Amino acid sequence: MTEQKKKRENIYADSLAFHEKYHGKIEVHSKVRLKNRHDLSLAYTPGVGAVSKEIAKDRELAWKYTIKANTIAIVTDGSRVLSLGNIGGCAAIPAMEGKALLFKKLAGINAFPICFEKSHPGLAMDIKNIAPVFGGIALEDIAAPRCFEIEEALQGIGIPVMHDDQHGTAVVVLAALLNACRVTKKEFVNLNVVICGAGAAGFAITRMLRHIGYDPQLFPAVNDIIVCDTQGIIHQDREGLYANKYKFIIADETNRGGRTGTLADALDGADVCIGVAGPGIVTPAMVRTMADDPIVFALASPIPEILPKDALLAGAAVVGTARSDYPNQINYALAFPGIFRGALDVSATRISDEMKYAAAHALAGYVKRPRHDRILPSVLNRDVVKTVAGAVSKAAVASGCARVF
Amino acid sequence: MTEQKKKRENIYADSLAFHEKYHGKIEVHSKVRLKNRHDLSLAYTPGVGAVSKEIAKDRELAWKYTIKANTIAIVTDGSRVLSLGNIGGCAAIPAMEGKALLFKKLAGINAFPICFEKSHPGLAMDIKNIAPVFGGIALEDIAAPRCFEIEEALQGIGIPVMHDDQHGTAVVVLAALLNACRVTKKEFVNLNVVICGAGAAGFAITRMLRHIGYDPQLFPAVNDIIVCDTQGIIHQDREGLYANKYKFIIADETNRGGRTGTLADALDGADVCIGVAGPGIVTPAMVRTMADDPIVFALASPIPEILPKDALLAGAAVVGTARSDYPNQINYALAFPGIFRGALDVSATRISDEMKYAAAHALAGYVKRPRHDRILPSVLNRDVVKTVAGAVSKAAVASGCARVF
Repeated sequence: MTEQKKKRENIYADSLAFHEKYHGKIEVHSKVRLKNRHDLSLAYTPGVGAVSKEIAKDRELAWKYTIKANTIAIVTDGSRVLSLGNIGGCAAIPAMEGKALLFKKLAGINAFPICFEKSHPGLAMDIKNIAPVFGGIALEDIAAPRCFEIEEALQGIGIPVMHDDQHGTAVVVLAALLNACRVTKKEFVNLNVVICGAGAAGFAITRMLRHIGYDPQLFPAVNDIIVCDTQGIIHQDREGLYANKYKFIIADETNRGGRTGTLADALDGADVCIGVAGPGIVTPAMVRTMADDPIVFALASPIPEILPKDALLAGAAVVGTARSDYPNQINYALAFPGIFRGALDVSATRISDEMKYAAAHALAGYVKRPRHDRILPSVLNRDVVKTVAGAVSKAAVASGCARVF
Repeated sequence: MTEQKKKRENIYADSLAFHEKYHGKIEVHSKVRLKNRHDLSLAYTPGVGAVSKEIAKDRELAWKYTIKANTIAIVTDGSRVLSLGNIGGCAAIPAMEGKALLFKKLAGINAFPICFEKSHPGLAMDIKNIAPVFGGIALEDIAAPRCFEIEEALQGIGIPVMHDDQHGTAVVVLAALLNACRVTKKEFVNLNVVICGAGAAGFAITRMLRHIGYDPQLFPAVNDIIVCDTQGIIHQDREGLYANKYKFIIADETNRGGRTGTLADALDGADVCIGVAGPGIVTPAMVRTMADDPIVFALASPIPEILPKDALLAGAAVVGTARSDYPNQINYALAFPGIFRGALDVSATRISDEMKYAAAHALAGYVKRPRHDRILPSVLNRDVVKTVAGAVSKAAVASGCARVF
């Protein structure tokens, strides 16, 4: 067993013991006193009847009188949990609790896990049906393409609904890329990017960097993107594209040169390699064929597409991973607490493109002097959350997504 | 405006101000530290992956590693909230939060409100689908007959599911009745009971006092029950009975004498009047026709079927209401915290009849020397919860409902 693998096995054993000790990492607390009949009559019956009556007349009053204004649901169907695949809603609980912890500790948000036992085509409507108590919904660990469908179906329900694996990741990747450009003196608009992986994260990164479905006036896009999946480069002439709407969109909006072939073919001459696929699939030989000062983000977790030292030895100028034990951790936890904090601070009706871009630029701007081994701040830095939240709130107001009472 | 009405209006105004001040009465707290990368690696990634993996292999491990063991959902569709009727899931939030408060403060249980926007015939399956994270489900403020159907459909999902408006109320009424018998020297098995109201509470009380669907060997039943609804006495020859399965059951199992007529006709000669219907529908004249030392529980809230002073003046020996400002508060809050505490303490698979009876008898037995104005303890007494919980846990083990790990 390698030293690293041994270390990981130790963390696994420690984490099991830790979870057994705590029997749950979150709990529901009371914010109010309940000592006598008068307390009871205010917080519960009969007083609470008046509050319910007011909300029945005007449901927007739920923002004023209930937990809604600072409470979100973390919703999963357990169909793609961490690197474990479709293990179901029950097995997803510890991960959802962990995320609830991050929301609370970093952003002061009350987040509660909603773990659906089974996924099904009508899941979006089920989620909508439990939304009253929540001021936002973070979708999590839902497999593609259902994650896209669910998120689309839930836009317009009057609260922010965001699939963090998609947009949280895309926002942080954009921020990392902006700062990697500052380090390497590359022009963002000239970048040729290869994205390895066409799942939730791959699709969202592609959309954001190329403005697919976004307002092109908002911010500049990169020059071109080539997306690879397990079959190699996605291109317009590939057979069976119509079977997957999202791959069809990718084919339509990327790879202007019509390149075909393997990941290695795609990377030849590219400025940026973004891996959101799986362990070890990017080789040093591939990195050597990239353009000068290549940028390599290998985000598979726990084992990245290429180890940082191998990428650096092969000539990479900036390397990032999803892991906290290497420099340049590109983790969506840098984005989602601030995005939801900023959204809730203005009781936002949804999360607009402007809000996502604002989050990415605030995150990049937080690092005053990026270096090749420090393009992003630390995940546990609450100042970052405040900075991102402020930018997101402002963008919400500017883009007409702040609630007016 | 009467003095009492003025007082109530004041409580309503105070409660609105109180709710506006707190912006939600509960919050989600972190139980664990999150200061550095090591904390993060234990509570979240990568460590949490090992925990999810274990639960994927054996879902019963969720009881060991997650919040499940001490967390319940308070589920409503808002179809019958307090005395406000079908006001929907959103307007129900303040009441559900209030109940979450009681669960936490009285029983140390983490309870989170799940408020369904819209009810529909498949709601039971929707509830089952969000059950993984919960060790129990308290159904609340759901209108009859759907409340019966949902509760029935959810028995056997491996966690306790109880509609508190039904069984919480029935348990407390049974306890109150046992002690009212001690006060009046009436024999429980000889009681002739009139239940005014055939909704959730009325049906559950009827079932419990007459053992409908319960094991008749467990405890004695009362002699007979007559149930009245808005059309008067329910009897076997009433037209249209088949349209409502639950009223058909009532007709089949009560009113052995085949009495017909109005509530007044039913109460003539009865020992006990239990009102779970609406304000002011029991008159002093009716009470005067009851048997000697009649027992009157007028549980409509906030305005009872008959005011205690009127019932007492008409000769009632023991009077109870749902309100905290009269003696003998018969409130389901005396039952549900202890029942769920006792169930969770043994990770119960369901709530058996034995557990409900044990709760009622423990609650009655808690009052060592019942008096006509003190048949039950106070709702805010945590000792009561402990006593009830202990009896419920014991009954769970005895009736094979305790989880074996």
